[in-house]
Amino acid sequence: MNNIFSTELKKLYSVFTQMGDAVSKQIEQATESYINHDKVAAQNLVQQDNSINGNEVDLEKQALTLMTLQQPVADDFRNVITILKASSDLERIGDHATGIALETIRVKGSHRNKEIETNIASLTNMIRDMLKVALTAFQDIDLKQAQAVANQDQDVDAKFDEIRNNITDAIRKDPAVAEAGASYLMVTKLLERIGDRIVNLAEEMVYNQTGEIVELNQGRLHPND
Amino acid sequence: MNNIFSTELKKLYSVFTQMGDAVSKQIEQATESYINHDKVAAQNLVQQDNSINGNEVDLEKQALTLMTLQQPVADDFRNVITILKASSDLERIGDHATGIALETIRVKGSHRNKEIETNIASLTNMIRDMLKVALTAFQDIDLKQAQAVANQDQDVDAKFDEIRNNITDAIRKDPAVAEAGASYLMVTKLLERIGDRIVNLAEEMVYNQTGEIVELNQGRLHPND
Repeated sequence: MNNIFSTELKKLYSVFTQMGDAVSKQIEQATESYINHDKVAAQNLVQQDNSINGNEVDLEKQALTLMTLQQPVADDFRNVITILKASSDLERIGDHATGIALETIRVKGSHRNKEIETNIASLTNMIRDMLKVALTAFQDIDLKQAQAVANQDQDVDAKFDEIRNNITDAIRKDPAVAEAGASYLMVTKLLERIGDRIVNLAEEMVYNQTGEIVELNQGRLHPND
Repeated sequence: MNNIFSTELKKLYSVFTQMGDAVSKQIEQATESYINHDKVAAQNLVQQDNSINGNEVDLEKQALTLMTLQQPVADDFRNVITILKASSDLERIGDHATGIALETIRVKGSHRNKEIETNIASLTNMIRDMLKVALTAFQDIDLKQAQAVANQDQDVDAKFDEIRNNITDAIRKDPAVAEAGASYLMVTKLLERIGDRIVNLAEEMVYNQTGEIVELNQGRLHPND
């Protein structure tokens, strides 16, 4: 890899990491707005999402310039395309966070369930830890950390199942909770999808390094294990 | 664009279209397995998903070879990267269909609700029509059709809301339906996410042509309109 290319590639990685930090913040704020029924904060988050989309466009423009000017070899291409695909993952994670904000705007009534909301908050923390590990693994090209992300996702899936059961139990006890329960379920599902997407991001990195497409979290495909 | 490049690019487009048709079939079969509580068919679908992932890898390898051998200019890069990103969208749509199959495997008991299941089936048909239009728009680089996809997504979102209300009403009437209702809601949400992803696919094409990142379905960001 020539020097200019590797310097420019480092810049791409750092833009990517900044984008990842912004998305992590977005997830935190989305859950906060939801749990606090804060429709104003949620509306602001929906607007902010455009700036994350903007980051992805900038990244792609820089990548195109880099590839056109530097005429890289196959491995360099793959590095750049991996960043582009991973940034697309981040942008979609941002969309899921926006989905949580939209749910905040949409939710009617004020049914609350402390246990469920506490679990949703801790699921959000698990997700953000996972994203942090994934971004580090991505930057350090650390395959072990990539696998660690997949293991975290199994905990996320377990927490999702726990919350899903919380919700169905709550509704069984009081059918009036049905609409609030549906809303809790939407948000929990969005968080679980974010977890899957973080695993995809780690998988992109592994694929880039090994040329092997992997399902790091096999549990996802074996729900009965 | 040189001739060899444009010939190879056409090949990429046709692999992409085949991948799209396979994914459409996957969506149909996933909903069928779910509505028929057919865990065996669902298990097969989960296995098949690997072949869709394989298509994406092949496509990426072809794209890398093409770009390395042909040293294309910026516009050619963007065309190839657009196909790679769109194929990544298709692969994720396949994941959502797999999610429906996994829900089929997971679902316990045999609570049924004819109205909800009929609505889920018709939502699935709407989604598959939408995917068909998107793939055609993508291949023909037809911006009008790309916008048509976004309009279809608004109908999909409306149908999602209708089903979500069906479900909460059903649960209110009979709390014992809570778990089945949660499952219906998961599947409906996965179908709605597939719709969003098809819009993303159309947006990639528009971005490729115009250099503008667009939200084709503005309704998604203005739930209160």
